[in-house]
Amino acid sequence: MTIRCLPLVAALALSACAAARTLPEPGPAAADVLAKASASDWRDLDPDQTLVFDSPAGRVVVELAPRFAPVHVANVRALATAGFWDGTAVVRVQDNYVVQWGDPTEKKDVGPIVRDPPAEYYAPAQGVPFAPLPEGDVYAAQVGWTDGMPVARDATDTQTWLVHCYGVVGVGRDMPPNTGTGAELYAVIGHAPRHLDRNLAMVGRVVSGLEHWTALARGKGPLGFYEAEGQRTPITRARLASALPEAERPKLQLLRTDTATWSAWVNARRHRKEPFFVEAAGRVDVCSVPLPTRPKP
Amino acid sequence: MTIRCLPLVAALALSACAAARTLPEPGPAAADVLAKASASDWRDLDPDQTLVFDSPAGRVVVELAPRFAPVHVANVRALATAGFWDGTAVVRVQDNYVVQWGDPTEKKDVGPIVRDPPAEYYAPAQGVPFAPLPEGDVYAAQVGWTDGMPVARDATDTQTWLVHCYGVVGVGRDMPPNTGTGAELYAVIGHAPRHLDRNLAMVGRVVSGLEHWTALARGKGPLGFYEAEGQRTPITRARLASALPEAERPKLQLLRTDTATWSAWVNARRHRKEPFFVEAAGRVDVCSVPLPTRPKP
Repeated sequence: MTIRCLPLVAALALSACAAARTLPEPGPAAADVLAKASASDWRDLDPDQTLVFDSPAGRVVVELAPRFAPVHVANVRALATAGFWDGTAVVRVQDNYVVQWGDPTEKKDVGPIVRDPPAEYYAPAQGVPFAPLPEGDVYAAQVGWTDGMPVARDATDTQTWLVHCYGVVGVGRDMPPNTGTGAELYAVIGHAPRHLDRNLAMVGRVVSGLEHWTALARGKGPLGFYEAEGQRTPITRARLASALPEAERPKLQLLRTDTATWSAWVNARRHRKEPFFVEAAGRVDVCSVPLPTRPKP
Repeated sequence: MTIRCLPLVAALALSACAAARTLPEPGPAAADVLAKASASDWRDLDPDQTLVFDSPAGRVVVELAPRFAPVHVANVRALATAGFWDGTAVVRVQDNYVVQWGDPTEKKDVGPIVRDPPAEYYAPAQGVPFAPLPEGDVYAAQVGWTDGMPVARDATDTQTWLVHCYGVVGVGRDMPPNTGTGAELYAVIGHAPRHLDRNLAMVGRVVSGLEHWTALARGKGPLGFYEAEGQRTPITRARLASALPEAERPKLQLLRTDTATWSAWVNARRHRKEPFFVEAAGRVDVCSVPLPTRPKP
């Protein structure tokens, strides 16, 4: 289901569109939505599209989103299979911005991957499933969710891209757009830096364990890079979940974003009913709807 | 300067208003704006409205905003003067949400302050200076800045309130609205939790040192509270800057938000020109414009 609307003013297409929409009335509270979700409202992680980073600080699990940057995701999967990140480190923690990890020397051989991938900063939207958020967005004509990921798209449903919400993972690069191989990754750890949207290739989203890395000391060098080797947190092993023994794989399920239950979940976040709240916002933004997870039953 | 506009659809007043506005064209880059700022574009911290928290993790400096919650701010100032927070601790760090500090026993005598302050969750907007952000906002009819603080207001300029951006400081409370004395404070350390707007009394914003507390280990108890005493970070001393010896006061200046330089700064954040960017967003949200600070010359 896609909301189509034409911009009144080109530069502010979304806002005009949003005004024409009505938001759903309050419904069940968040806890009730999850309690009533059926087995089919949940999905397993695909072990072939799940990256597991083990470090002394804890385990960080990333779900990949191959639809948006297929060449970059293929690179990332090949690097994991080759054990590229084993012995690399978290090299940068910039407060209210990003944590970044990879090879600090930037000289480690990346092997037979695409070394100058195209600038996959957005993807064709046609035929892509999309659960729109009727509130709209300050930045994009449309926002919502695709395959469990927060996404944006233009007013004509031509292009779609991942949104830089908390925990979303992208590929670090140098100045030229085709310089990010996938060997250096970052995750958002602050208020959504939406100015990065459509400027980097995004490969997925952290689904568990980000709190292990958000609590690392901030780097004191430029851009939050660590200045001394001893400050870095080593990555002991990084693999696709499918390459791990069954017992070591993450056993998580995620709430699907293409269901009526998801719409009810978004609405429960829009109209908070917990007794703490004096006044419910009645609205929600795309980066303020967490993706529920649960242990695999 | 206040933009007034009437809602087309009551529930989405802002979006309709925003569509009628045009955004400024690109101008000078961020670095140039600051380089060309004059001495009068900067202001000193008022030592009587500046709270300094010293802890083994580092110093956190909060600028108070008495305009929005005067009784709560008076309480907070009285508590600092009485040394109430000396020997208390950071008791809660919830990932992508808040850090909270105060007396973990909740039994320490708060002394002669207002023990059941009114629910100062918004304030009259009339006569309050306001630098509006023309992009608008998903949540509020209007957003912008007042006295250096990120703020929202309704469409009729009747009420104004502080917005829960990264670093904004509020007063913790229990379920009843008048239970937050000011003895327990929190700061936002994640994506702006805007559903908290107008549900708590906000007293100011961290202007330096938040990175010392955002890097603390997340608490593993409910809501991110620490489960063991040893996990807490002690607050060794908390005082108004005016109560500290001159040599120990923060020596910071902040960019004013009621000047043409501020508008140029916001515009530079809207149209990022640094060579890294392939595509500038052309928009910015109220929580993505940092407040520049500099050492006092």
